[in-house]
Amino acid sequence: MPRISHKGLELPQSAIRKLVPFADATKAHGIHVYHLNIGQPDIETPKEALEVLSEKAHEMAQNHGVLAYSPSAGIQSYREKLCQYYKMHGIDITPERILVTTGGSEALQMAFTCCLNPGDEIIIPEPYYTNYNTFAKLCDAKIVTVPSSIESGFALPLVDDFERYITPYTRAIMICNPNNPTGYLYSEKDLYAVSALCKKYDLYLFADEVYREFCYDGEKHFSVLNLPGCENNVVLFDSVSKRYSACGARVGCVITRNSELFSAMMRMAQARLSPPTFGQVFAEAAIDTPKEYFDAVMDEYVARRNVVVEGINKIPGCFCPNPKGAFYTVCELPIDDSDYFCQWLLTDFEYKGATVMLAPATGFYSDPEKGRHQVRITYCLCIEDLKAAMKCLEEALKVYPGRIKVKAKAASKTVKKSSPKANKKAVSKKK
Amino acid sequence: MPRISHKGLELPQSAIRKLVPFADATKAHGIHVYHLNIGQPDIETPKEALEVLSEKAHEMAQNHGVLAYSPSAGIQSYREKLCQYYKMHGIDITPERILVTTGGSEALQMAFTCCLNPGDEIIIPEPYYTNYNTFAKLCDAKIVTVPSSIESGFALPLVDDFERYITPYTRAIMICNPNNPTGYLYSEKDLYAVSALCKKYDLYLFADEVYREFCYDGEKHFSVLNLPGCENNVVLFDSVSKRYSACGARVGCVITRNSELFSAMMRMAQARLSPPTFGQVFAEAAIDTPKEYFDAVMDEYVARRNVVVEGINKIPGCFCPNPKGAFYTVCELPIDDSDYFCQWLLTDFEYKGATVMLAPATGFYSDPEKGRHQVRITYCLCIEDLKAAMKCLEEALKVYPGRIKVKAKAASKTVKKSSPKANKKAVSKKK
Repeated sequence: MPRISHKGLELPQSAIRKLVPFADATKAHGIHVYHLNIGQPDIETPKEALEVLSEKAHEMAQNHGVLAYSPSAGIQSYREKLCQYYKMHGIDITPERILVTTGGSEALQMAFTCCLNPGDEIIIPEPYYTNYNTFAKLCDAKIVTVPSSIESGFALPLVDDFERYITPYTRAIMICNPNNPTGYLYSEKDLYAVSALCKKYDLYLFADEVYREFCYDGEKHFSVLNLPGCENNVVLFDSVSKRYSACGARVGCVITRNSELFSAMMRMAQARLSPPTFGQVFAEAAIDTPKEYFDAVMDEYVARRNVVVEGINKIPGCFCPNPKGAFYTVCELPIDDSDYFCQWLLTDFEYKGATVMLAPATGFYSDPEKGRHQVRITYCLCIEDLKAAMKCLEEALKVYPGRIKVKAKAASKTVKKSSPKANKKAVSKKK
Repeated sequence: MPRISHKGLELPQSAIRKLVPFADATKAHGIHVYHLNIGQPDIETPKEALEVLSEKAHEMAQNHGVLAYSPSAGIQSYREKLCQYYKMHGIDITPERILVTTGGSEALQMAFTCCLNPGDEIIIPEPYYTNYNTFAKLCDAKIVTVPSSIESGFALPLVDDFERYITPYTRAIMICNPNNPTGYLYSEKDLYAVSALCKKYDLYLFADEVYREFCYDGEKHFSVLNLPGCENNVVLFDSVSKRYSACGARVGCVITRNSELFSAMMRMAQARLSPPTFGQVFAEAAIDTPKEYFDAVMDEYVARRNVVVEGINKIPGCFCPNPKGAFYTVCELPIDDSDYFCQWLLTDFEYKGATVMLAPATGFYSDPEKGRHQVRITYCLCIEDLKAAMKCLEEALKVYPGRIKVKAKAASKTVKKSSPKANKKAVSKKK
């Protein structure tokens, strides 16, 4: 039997999906599972955009149309419309800088491949989005992490901390803003600091901004595309997945003003021919989604976040920061081993016929030990379910055999509540 | 400015698309370009499947639906339906062996990555599909070519020829059947010979069968999935792009009975989350496309092939084999340099307000010299346009300044004409 490649052997299993078989078994026994483990929003996809796709497919059927390859860089009218979208967010960009990809994932893969040589290093504040590991592995690059701490809500580490990790092999600094998995929203000042470092050491600044819209409590998002003087350093990853609750569209993009890099990514794009046509038709129409849709969505997420943050902080021994963006939070629980706890929830626990599925934070750290007492919680469920899930988690912690003592940060926790109204105002101002 | 990676620098430009800027300039001058250079069928996409997608998108809009990620291996009902499709073609396969991908391109990328280490070699008969180069480059593997000859219509090289190229680094033999770019259809006997070699040297047998339906003159397709005793060697690449004239759907799959390999590819698939949902909905419905659709399409392609083969062979100094499958042919022209000739057609020639765009065969060979007098012609245009294109090519060769003398094979050419009827019968038998 022919052997598989070293990469084939070493590609990591998804930290988020590895508990799925246990969840399936639990469901098979009639137990309801509250999914707080995956970033699959339950928010309705904008119906206007779905109707546009429906009409276009119908027209194609009626007119003997051909579902052709799109251009490798994406449908031209979509790239132009994307520029309008970015303009609404105060970002000035032209279509020839935008390469449409199959989801944000392909954007990451193209940029990593065209920027990083084997052995090159990318510095990332941890905890960080686990799938970056696979894309780094695919080009034999190495992820080097700078710790951020739960006490500060996972704020950006100090520039000195970053600088300490820079070696001759460092090729990029990567920022996910707002952050998955922590929900932290980096400020304009934070990004200027990172960009100064990138300029000083001639590094790429990779930025994953797929949660751009998801900013709460009146906070505003600042894009790396608006950093002056680092046009050749900045590479932006984007996606319509979360923005329009359209994860299945598989449409993203990579944007850079670095022409040499763009041209290399284009050659890679040509080999895979084109991104999905239906998804692009949908995504182009989705740019016209009315502002009211986003206002309602942001209000809903603020309310959900509040349920989770308050729910967890009132459980003895737990600590949850108050994230300002995305729909994740990493919190600390009084548990001996988050991998075991998350599995135990599925295999050995139920409360009123239900249990909770969480993502162990071990998979979001370079050293799993750092996430041993932490879990990532996604607040993609409706308020009622989230409340039930919080109650379930509370009961679980009462009986979990591996419960450990309360730490200092959990004892001294303070949580600031913010109202949906304040956020609504912020969303209105942004547009 | 940060440097781009070695791979970024070395990724080859698409041999098929590199003349596009010249074509655009020609069109801007009002000259019509007959595109014989790309495999983008003009055949209508099955309207029933488009209507199913249209309805599903409409239903989702009406019911506050969510366009969610599909499972990483593809929508389960689609994988099951794919098994029905393969059964119609005499292939017995189960859903857990099928990983749905974003086009055939991603299938290639996943298998190459999980099978090949840097320095590993894949043996391919040449000329071969140029984009394999990029996917090999992405994992630092090397394509090693075994020559096939235009005199035999690019038949499979002898086993001895293959064996001569096997080294300790050889990890796979790759076959595209029916072949792009030659149109050659490998027989059951051919594939048994290749599989014996793969078993003898413990090699993967990579097979690209995206043109499975496109077999002419009563010939039948034989799939590598039906080769006995090499379950762990065979890796199949497939796609709905050509089958349903749906290149923009970006839905393909990779199939293997090698569980270790499948599991590695699944880990890679999880990192990119999922293939496109809309495309999968369309592709699932497309499996019900009525047989009459394919009968009509195959008749059309046989008629087109005959126009091209006869058209080229009647031009003095030209030779075109009579391909039995796909919709390509590589033919020999009395020209000094196919790269220059194909560019010249776009920049310096017109006949009655039109010209022809061809793909120089140089890009389909490991050594461009071998394709210096050859071009790949795609017969994806309607009969009338193909006839006009042939006339155009004939006139071009009369005045091309780099015309060279007629070779022996062109002088002794024989072409067998086949009727659409014969093919129709074959298609009927196959179902």
